[in-house]
Amino acid sequence: MGKRLLVIGGVAAGPKAAAKAKRCDPRMEIVIYQGEEEISYAGCGLPYFISGVIKERDDLISRTPGQFAQDGIKVQKNRQIKEIDVKNRRISGLKIGSGDTFTDHFDHLVLATGAFPIRPKMEGIDLGHVFYLRSIFDADAILQAIGSKSIRNAVIAGGGYIGLEMAESLIHLGKNVTIVELAPQILTLFDEDFASILRQYLKSKGVQIFTSERIEALKGSAGKVTHVQTAARELETDAVLMSLGIRPQVELAKNAGLRIGETGAIWVNEKMETSVPGIYAAGDCVETTHLVTGKSTWIPLGSTANKQGRVVGVNVCGGNDAFPGVMGTTIFKTFDFNVAKTGLSMKEAKKEGFHPVQAIVRGFDRAHYYPGKKESTLKVIADRETGRILGGQAVGEGPSDKFIDTLAMALHGKMTCRELASVDLAYAPPFSPVLSPVIVAANVLLNKLEGKVQGIEAAEVREKLSTSKETFQVLDVREEDEVKKKRIPGSTWIPLWKLGKRAGELDKSKEIAVHCESGLRSYKACLKLQQEGFENVKNIDGGMLCWCDDL
Amino acid sequence: MGKRLLVIGGVAAGPKAAAKAKRCDPRMEIVIYQGEEEISYAGCGLPYFISGVIKERDDLISRTPGQFAQDGIKVQKNRQIKEIDVKNRRISGLKIGSGDTFTDHFDHLVLATGAFPIRPKMEGIDLGHVFYLRSIFDADAILQAIGSKSIRNAVIAGGGYIGLEMAESLIHLGKNVTIVELAPQILTLFDEDFASILRQYLKSKGVQIFTSERIEALKGSAGKVTHVQTAARELETDAVLMSLGIRPQVELAKNAGLRIGETGAIWVNEKMETSVPGIYAAGDCVETTHLVTGKSTWIPLGSTANKQGRVVGVNVCGGNDAFPGVMGTTIFKTFDFNVAKTGLSMKEAKKEGFHPVQAIVRGFDRAHYYPGKKESTLKVIADRETGRILGGQAVGEGPSDKFIDTLAMALHGKMTCRELASVDLAYAPPFSPVLSPVIVAANVLLNKLEGKVQGIEAAEVREKLSTSKETFQVLDVREEDEVKKKRIPGSTWIPLWKLGKRAGELDKSKEIAVHCESGLRSYKACLKLQQEGFENVKNIDGGMLCWCDDL
Repeated sequence: MGKRLLVIGGVAAGPKAAAKAKRCDPRMEIVIYQGEEEISYAGCGLPYFISGVIKERDDLISRTPGQFAQDGIKVQKNRQIKEIDVKNRRISGLKIGSGDTFTDHFDHLVLATGAFPIRPKMEGIDLGHVFYLRSIFDADAILQAIGSKSIRNAVIAGGGYIGLEMAESLIHLGKNVTIVELAPQILTLFDEDFASILRQYLKSKGVQIFTSERIEALKGSAGKVTHVQTAARELETDAVLMSLGIRPQVELAKNAGLRIGETGAIWVNEKMETSVPGIYAAGDCVETTHLVTGKSTWIPLGSTANKQGRVVGVNVCGGNDAFPGVMGTTIFKTFDFNVAKTGLSMKEAKKEGFHPVQAIVRGFDRAHYYPGKKESTLKVIADRETGRILGGQAVGEGPSDKFIDTLAMALHGKMTCRELASVDLAYAPPFSPVLSPVIVAANVLLNKLEGKVQGIEAAEVREKLSTSKETFQVLDVREEDEVKKKRIPGSTWIPLWKLGKRAGELDKSKEIAVHCESGLRSYKACLKLQQEGFENVKNIDGGMLCWCDDL
Repeated sequence: MGKRLLVIGGVAAGPKAAAKAKRCDPRMEIVIYQGEEEISYAGCGLPYFISGVIKERDDLISRTPGQFAQDGIKVQKNRQIKEIDVKNRRISGLKIGSGDTFTDHFDHLVLATGAFPIRPKMEGIDLGHVFYLRSIFDADAILQAIGSKSIRNAVIAGGGYIGLEMAESLIHLGKNVTIVELAPQILTLFDEDFASILRQYLKSKGVQIFTSERIEALKGSAGKVTHVQTAARELETDAVLMSLGIRPQVELAKNAGLRIGETGAIWVNEKMETSVPGIYAAGDCVETTHLVTGKSTWIPLGSTANKQGRVVGVNVCGGNDAFPGVMGTTIFKTFDFNVAKTGLSMKEAKKEGFHPVQAIVRGFDRAHYYPGKKESTLKVIADRETGRILGGQAVGEGPSDKFIDTLAMALHGKMTCRELASVDLAYAPPFSPVLSPVIVAANVLLNKLEGKVQGIEAAEVREKLSTSKETFQVLDVREEDEVKKKRIPGSTWIPLWKLGKRAGELDKSKEIAVHCESGLRSYKACLKLQQEGFENVKNIDGGMLCWCDDL
């Protein structure tokens, strides 16, 4: 007789742990307990199921209980686990529906209890047509409601990536979409400049966005939501999607005396074992290590859950696998924009005590002469003292995923920007510019670290333009056709090739922030001005790529 | 007065070195000497110019002499340098056309003399319509000739990546294309299995391929080629493209007494300085270090040339930049197949004394349920003793570039397959399966290194099927619909789910090579058979993904 392994939670990490354990030790008796009617489904696919990109609900189901049974794994659906008796190695719970109780015993236990959406205490929160999107049943409920033509306006509470994915889904379905975000920017894990690029894009797609605005109440009529009340306005709406974030599901673990980490998620070691030997946990309910900061972090993701599930499957069978941690890599698509990040943002890096420097460049997916090119704006961040790469962000229709994967690997390799500048990435005209944008960014960072030209962030330029006009000027060195399209208000325009003759028009006593479209010409202009004796010259990071008129 | 920098060679590394040097030290006097009429053009784009994907010749020109002049860099076109006088810091040469001689002096010199195509000594090699593709003028000549409808058949001598890119270009132009390759496989830098996948694909596109066949002579009439004579056949043709490879252009360096490396290219140190202080070299004419083997290697590529050019530009100005070497990363596109490699092949790894193990998996670009998916077959290779990643290959319509970039970064980070199995790559359904194929391959490698199931290469299966039928059997564990499409001749078919009951049909005394479509089901089958007491069970690497009927 084999050992008995119980798995609590049947969406991602749980089924993965069960399947891997069965392969490692075919004699292991395995039961998966799942609180819902479905198991092993693709939570990350739900926004695309709602938008209709994914046509069949069944496509989201990775494996059915019947398929698990074929591998010798038993699935118990609609079972709510109420208690873990650590000492006696037993669990007990309720059958959903009948309410009957049951108990079971285990040699090994895996907690994969996932996370739940934040439900704020607020007037009107229990009204009809107030939705969440976490489980496949939430998606069913949204689909059933929004199929109706009577739902024309939708408010999304929260400008995180689920909210932004859903903005696209709802616009595709012909709804009017408004996002309300409490923070001063959408997408708070990204820096303000990149969030602004995305905000302008979403506006062009018809999404209305209000930031720095708290939702105070939901108003309704006949039991259904009709208005969203914020501090600044009242929004008419036929549906509300609450996407204010999620929290780890830790109650069961907590009550069983398992250690809860500083992030509020279940603490585990590298082997994914909780504070109680023989009890493992994986997926959205556990915290892990952020490999850039070395600190505990909670970044729930399907990919991480799968990797952790595999490690648990190996280790419950006596193996010795480990999950070292994450880089905070994240990606999502909204309309045709691919938005991705790895490591730390400028904001986060400063908070962690680094002295971050950033390079912002145009990121094409092919050689400039090869037709059909797509572009993402790419940011790479390094530490001023050590040159170590700290993170990156990419936004646009271009290969954000490829850039961010390359940078995630640079983080895993603890690379400096000097090392990154010479990496041997795949080049041919249909796949990349001759120098990958990642390498170009590394070169820009090298120039900055060598102190050749200082950078200045767009946000700082914006602030100085409004507060320090007497001591600060912006120089635009682009060509006339570019200047006509978009221009920073109050800037002086001298094309780069005229700068030699016309530098005298600038005031040497003022700080000068120079920009072009993306940064190369302005870099040359800065060098030129420094030669001419200008002492306080800075290159605006990302030039016009990151300059948004509308914040 | 600044120092005087002369640059010999004006295509990629030379102009890059010049531009960077001018930015680092604006007082530097810089002259680029170029042997052709054009400078700074995209050699890698030539096949796409010929096919018509790139419409305008001018699009291939990165910068004109006028643009260099604006930056204060002088360009001397049509100048053939004949001699470098190292002692007196002078060069001398001829003006092409007039034949006038000239001399110049330098403080610093950069050699970026590039490479030239191999022109074999062979009967008929000087006939008309025998082409090479190296410079933009070669492309002009090809375009002028093949525009004519009288050219219907073309033979490409050499199955390397230029030949395969050109096969697509010529098929697009409506020509009948035959490739003749001396080696037993096309694409000799790749392993046989992956070259076979590509070969089958090219056949489906109408490209005729003969391998293990030496071209003995070109026959002609009225001064133009009409037949290609190989050891096995005579091919009627209206044009021949000789793409037998290139060699570094080192004559000038050699005559000047500069050290030539063991690869036959110019030796340089990490600073890109030749054996003579103050004389630098970069691009296709120099050798560099292969960072996996630590040995000297010569892998001419536009991307490498650009990176080296930048390092030279910094160092001639007294900076301290370095180019450490390459991973052998390469990529090309032929029709809709993206074909890429980094690090060592199985073949190369064995030759270098490693004990390589490979994993071959399906590489999708998105979640299985997200519509429109594309696939590349992916191979990852690790060393059995250390687990260190040694290389990878990818072929197919999927994101070969992204996979290979990720693996190139793993090589730079000196990662083991255990480390690679938990890297934090960007996951969302439109961008990747929940576990990146790179991670799945790392997991397969881990299983192999732990000795759970042994692998066997397709080539070995093929050989044993023809030589050891008495002691060897192939087991196919796929479903009926899969088996009907394509099957290994002589294999036994038992679907995985029937294996429990029907394992008795197999002969325990024989070696059993098991396969499914890509490897997961056959892995499970191997585990099952091992439990049942079968001792000599192997999983066929890559299953049917790498099985080509037609070799």
